[in-house]
Amino acid sequence: MDDPRGDGRGAALKRLRRSHQDTVLAALARPGGLSRAELAEHTGLSRSTLYTIVGDLLADGAVLEVPGSAVPGSRGRRATRITANPRGAVRIGLDIGRSRVHVAFVDTAGRRLATGTRQLPPLPHWNRRTDAAIGLIRKVAADHDLSAAAPRGIGIGLPGPVHLDERGRILGEDTRIRQLRRVQDRIGEAFGAPTAVGNNTRYAALGEALWGGARGAENVLYIRVSDAVGGGIVCQGRLLTGRRGAAGELGHLVADPAGPPCYCGGSGCLETYTAIPALLEQCRENGLTVADAADLVRAVRAEDPAACRAVTGAADLLGAHLARLAAVFDPDQVIVGGPLAGLDRDFLARIRSLVRVHCLASVGEPPEVRAAELDDDAGALGAVAALERGSEPLSVANLQAR
Amino acid sequence: MDDPRGDGRGAALKRLRRSHQDTVLAALARPGGLSRAELAEHTGLSRSTLYTIVGDLLADGAVLEVPGSAVPGSRGRRATRITANPRGAVRIGLDIGRSRVHVAFVDTAGRRLATGTRQLPPLPHWNRRTDAAIGLIRKVAADHDLSAAAPRGIGIGLPGPVHLDERGRILGEDTRIRQLRRVQDRIGEAFGAPTAVGNNTRYAALGEALWGGARGAENVLYIRVSDAVGGGIVCQGRLLTGRRGAAGELGHLVADPAGPPCYCGGSGCLETYTAIPALLEQCRENGLTVADAADLVRAVRAEDPAACRAVTGAADLLGAHLARLAAVFDPDQVIVGGPLAGLDRDFLARIRSLVRVHCLASVGEPPEVRAAELDDDAGALGAVAALERGSEPLSVANLQAR
Repeated sequence: MDDPRGDGRGAALKRLRRSHQDTVLAALARPGGLSRAELAEHTGLSRSTLYTIVGDLLADGAVLEVPGSAVPGSRGRRATRITANPRGAVRIGLDIGRSRVHVAFVDTAGRRLATGTRQLPPLPHWNRRTDAAIGLIRKVAADHDLSAAAPRGIGIGLPGPVHLDERGRILGEDTRIRQLRRVQDRIGEAFGAPTAVGNNTRYAALGEALWGGARGAENVLYIRVSDAVGGGIVCQGRLLTGRRGAAGELGHLVADPAGPPCYCGGSGCLETYTAIPALLEQCRENGLTVADAADLVRAVRAEDPAACRAVTGAADLLGAHLARLAAVFDPDQVIVGGPLAGLDRDFLARIRSLVRVHCLASVGEPPEVRAAELDDDAGALGAVAALERGSEPLSVANLQAR
Repeated sequence: MDDPRGDGRGAALKRLRRSHQDTVLAALARPGGLSRAELAEHTGLSRSTLYTIVGDLLADGAVLEVPGSAVPGSRGRRATRITANPRGAVRIGLDIGRSRVHVAFVDTAGRRLATGTRQLPPLPHWNRRTDAAIGLIRKVAADHDLSAAAPRGIGIGLPGPVHLDERGRILGEDTRIRQLRRVQDRIGEAFGAPTAVGNNTRYAALGEALWGGARGAENVLYIRVSDAVGGGIVCQGRLLTGRRGAAGELGHLVADPAGPPCYCGGSGCLETYTAIPALLEQCRENGLTVADAADLVRAVRAEDPAACRAVTGAADLLGAHLARLAAVFDPDQVIVGGPLAGLDRDFLARIRSLVRVHCLASVGEPPEVRAAELDDDAGALGAVAALERGSEPLSVANLQAR
């Protein structure tokens, strides 16, 4: 009972210290800051505990000392005030994809300070992707005068399932997992910062929930239909991970158990019918040559029957599954990302009408169905949010207090 | 930023005090307790804060003062030690159903102290159900010598959707809601205790996750197939509620949008095909008269073809929906409650094999599919767990520290 997580007294003390740091930062989430004496009073911490905690936060650059006004009756002595340092406690988010790296810098107030992208050749070795990520962080920091700030943490979004142990380390022993662990270690070491890792599409759900199309919503069902189909679910302000990191993996919902085999080992997965490559193929079979998603979108807007049939068919299949999930999750919003989300009549509106049919009418209005807003930055921004402790709901308000 | 929840400085102080109380109770989760000086050292709280917090906890009966061993070099003076009071900080859970009331008493260590049931005439007025609940609490407390203990909180499970505001008050204005609010107020006032309310089937999911078939699992998909079909979802140790309290309402998943109308306002809901009354009706249509669930179970065990067909059909339909939900939630366990859960070959095993087909194979073994263990007490026990703060994952370990 002393040590329910089995990770020793050191870890328990670390958690307590972190909790006290959060209490102090929360008390400082006001303009002007507080003196140490006021902080002790506001937080209920002992003076010696408070001095240690403030010392640590000063060393981290998370808070600043500023001269305050004169203390009454003290012959002009000024109480030093402690304030939060908005640029000092920068958090960095990375989305390391199969052919691109995105980065986002966020301050203690939850504001986006800077973002950046680097294109990579398709499927480069993980060492090369890691180098690119580290270089991109340095470049964006230098370009935006953030270079001196030691990051308070780096969130790293990665493609594919990422299953973590209780301490946030990636579980598993195959080659891919060992490579991902090395990515995490190298990035953490390069900046001397704590890191968090997770699936980049799940992080995109978090990004949309905090900064994008679902801003302010506590419960968000997110799907991205692109070269692959993926998703993420935010419930009560928290990203669902599930037992093996697979919660929200919408692309491998089985649409038809008797359908064609999928690379995941299953059959008839939603992705095999509705990802962009499947829709391009379907167009080709119907005599329409479309090269990529942009081409497909143009063909739908030009009301090409083969393109419309492919896209409306995908919308109906995706909609039937999303609608049942929405009925069970009861989200505020269903957010649809990827290149098709801008097509209203043939795509988004069809999903919306299916969600309406399946939604439990007796408890009120169905959730909104909307297009994603952040698209390329969503994963990197969400990765920042993943740095927050699991025990607190994720919200911009909470980010502000850190 | 000072007051992100908009509920004033008083509420912020109350949260801080509650957080300090939790820190103290967590430090006391060891045999023998601690002196006040040791407690101050372990928690980092100032002496004056600590004395206030311990004073409040003593007044609540949550902790006890016991004489300690002699303080070295103090000429025999003994430092008073503070220990957690396992019987003092009793939490009570209620499940107020349509024809029965259940109660459960749980101590600070998360142990079940006592349970009880009172049968009611079908669908009595809410005043009568409330009287029965209050009377049952008093009787069970008296029978088990718990009468003197002021409860630290009362969780109240209620049938139907329950949608709460941020402070845990039931939202809505219709007659039913006003009655439910009155139930909550009367029970809270009768025992001078804080209360929490929620849907009783969702609470049953929580009960199974903490004390029942899914003990120790963080991610649980729970369904109960009885006179109605309901469910609840626990993710990362937390009960999902959704935007309108409808998350986990599995009975109204639309199995067939073209199906018969359901009382909920939808069509072709899972409940209309798979609840016990629907299966009894199906048996009658096939020439088998079965009076109730027990009768139906007996007929299946006797391999009556009509009974087997009804039950296996229900299993296949439930299984197809549960399997897709399990693929998206990635639970540790799928728990099936209600009278049919004991039928393996014709019911549980069929659901299990569907879950296996739909589960994302590349990330590991599918979740276990098991029968519920608590059945009648699940809702009342889960209601106790719902008393915990939303910001902490629910676990027996956490219950112990409160």
